Amino acid sequence: MAKVISFARHGGPEVFEYIEAGTPEPAANEVRIRVKAIGLNRAESMWRRGEYVEPATLPARVGYEASGVVDAIGANVTHVSVGDAVSTVPSFSMNDYGVYGELVLAPEHAVVKSPAWLSHEDAVAIWNVFVTPYAAFTEHERVKPGDVVLIPAASSGVGIGAIQVAKRLGATAVALTRTREKRDALVALGADHVIVTGEEDLVVAVQRITEGRGADLAFDPVGGKDFARLIDALRPGGTILLYGALSADETVLPVLPLLLKRITVHGYNLFATTTDAQRQAAAAAFVFDGLQSGALKTVIAHRFEFAQMVQAHTLLERNEHFGRVVVSV
Amino acid sequence: MAKVISFARHGGPEVFEYIEAGTPEPAANEVRIRVKAIGLNRAESMWRRGEYVEPATLPARVGYEASGVVDAIGANVTHVSVGDAVSTVPSFSMNDYGVYGELVLAPEHAVVKSPAWLSHEDAVAIWNVFVTPYAAFTEHERVKPGDVVLIPAASSGVGIGAIQVAKRLGATAVALTRTREKRDALVALGADHVIVTGEEDLVVAVQRITEGRGADLAFDPVGGKDFARLIDALRPGGTILLYGALSADETVLPVLPLLLKRITVHGYNLFATTTDAQRQAAAAAFVFDGLQSGALKTVIAHRFEFAQMVQAHTLLERNEHFGRVVVSV
Repeated sequence: MAKVISFARHGGPEVFEYIEAGTPEPAANEVRIRVKAIGLNRAESMWRRGEYVEPATLPARVGYEASGVVDAIGANVTHVSVGDAVSTVPSFSMNDYGVYGELVLAPEHAVVKSPAWLSHEDAVAIWNVFVTPYAAFTEHERVKPGDVVLIPAASSGVGIGAIQVAKRLGATAVALTRTREKRDALVALGADHVIVTGEEDLVVAVQRITEGRGADLAFDPVGGKDFARLIDALRPGGTILLYGALSADETVLPVLPLLLKRITVHGYNLFATTTDAQRQAAAAAFVFDGLQSGALKTVIAHRFEFAQMVQAHTLLERNEHFGRVVVSV
Repeated sequence: MAKVISFARHGGPEVFEYIEAGTPEPAANEVRIRVKAIGLNRAESMWRRGEYVEPATLPARVGYEASGVVDAIGANVTHVSVGDAVSTVPSFSMNDYGVYGELVLAPEHAVVKSPAWLSHEDAVAIWNVFVTPYAAFTEHERVKPGDVVLIPAASSGVGIGAIQVAKRLGATAVALTRTREKRDALVALGADHVIVTGEEDLVVAVQRITEGRGADLAFDPVGGKDFARLIDALRPGGTILLYGALSADETVLPVLPLLLKRITVHGYNLFATTTDAQRQAAAAAFVFDGLQSGALKTVIAHRFEFAQMVQAHTLLERNEHFGRVVVSV
């Protein structure tokens, strides 16, 4: 018998319920996966709270990123076979699929074969963590060698990925963090500079680092009150890639600085990459190559058992961890 | 004796004073121009009110766009000669130069020779009106043939230019206007569609026009409360070129729609084009060519005499005119 996680009302981690889902039969173009590991994302916490970009139809399933072994395939599935190690790619609606479970279905387009050397724990840290910055930075060659890239929320899963991806693209990675607690860990990851925004003025620090030029790009999942300061820290013609809405405050556009400095704000989400087969494959190749060579490293903050999903989400929302929260199944 | 306009305090049109400035001697790289016509811009009204992007040092001169005849040249000036018909390009600080005057100085880089056939009235309607949309639309090929371009404040000087430039680039021009009063004039100018935003819902109208696809680009000088609706009217991957801050309200960025639809917001100002000699020349060639062939037409709303600058600015700020407010000197 196989359990999945579901919730019937929005709220804190305690709304999660374990329900018996049996052995779901894959329809055409679906893959059944015996899950070995689940990577937790803030998106799933927002989904559970009813604060996600897409409203959930209750009761709802949950979960974007799992790694496991193909257990059965539906009609027309050609690119994976029973027994293959695979990971799931965030490229579907959680109203249709959710991978928090022991035995789950996923659409074929969202299932990617893992190389033999890849662990299940690493396989659930690929897509949001590394492909989000990879795709955002390489689309239209937005990040070029020598560019100075500001990374707010640097200790988040994607922040940690962004530091490493920026370095791999030849850029200077500037990690932004509120307290000095995680400074050393960020430097160890490869950050060229760490700005502790609770202690020093962002704009002054960026001016010092760039010798008065300003940063080329900011990769921001926050928005809100700090958004205007990020724009102040950019060079004329600079870019903000906004890929999240973590701040509960309004994001007011500072129009005059935006015009004067000819700043570009790009709204970014991973789905444009993960729902395009060719781009998905190119992104996977970049990440697999980086993980195999050691240029990219997965940082695991905490491991939980499947029965501990409430605790795992509680920790996720406490926002004090450094790296990926992973659940073993 | 030659008079210029100046103001010693910020305020309404009545703060303008006519002062006797004699015959200013051009320094190196400066040109003295006997002014024949002045084109009025909203920027100058904001400058006078103390609401411009750049603060004014009082007492201040004012004026970006004049047409006239070269009266004298300073050392090192090579590309214009005494007697040439020229126009001035907004590419300087009004703290340094202001062209509201009978005899004014301008820096050489801001002085462009007029073709023989060009009238002084047309020559003061080139830069803000046509080059702002031309440069914004052609930089990075942002507007392509077949694109649907939304033009808020379509009856403004730049709006009128934008309709014509969009058409000349092969795009579909959708003019946005608050009341039906100017609908016919906008259609006569070449607008493919006119949306009267006071009478019909912008998003519904754009969906109808684009058969549900959404617009490719919006060229917005307003910001403020209507900004979020403009984003709703764009297709996924669409762009807002923001080139003004006419709204007194805050411009709140609708972060979730921005992310979901991967919208780009570009802050734009003319100076990046007008301060680059090569781009300035390419833009001038496009406009001269269009005016000569009749593809671009100057629309003059009202003509005033130099002694009537207070009335001219009063009309400018009433915001009911259609086309260019021009002052003959």
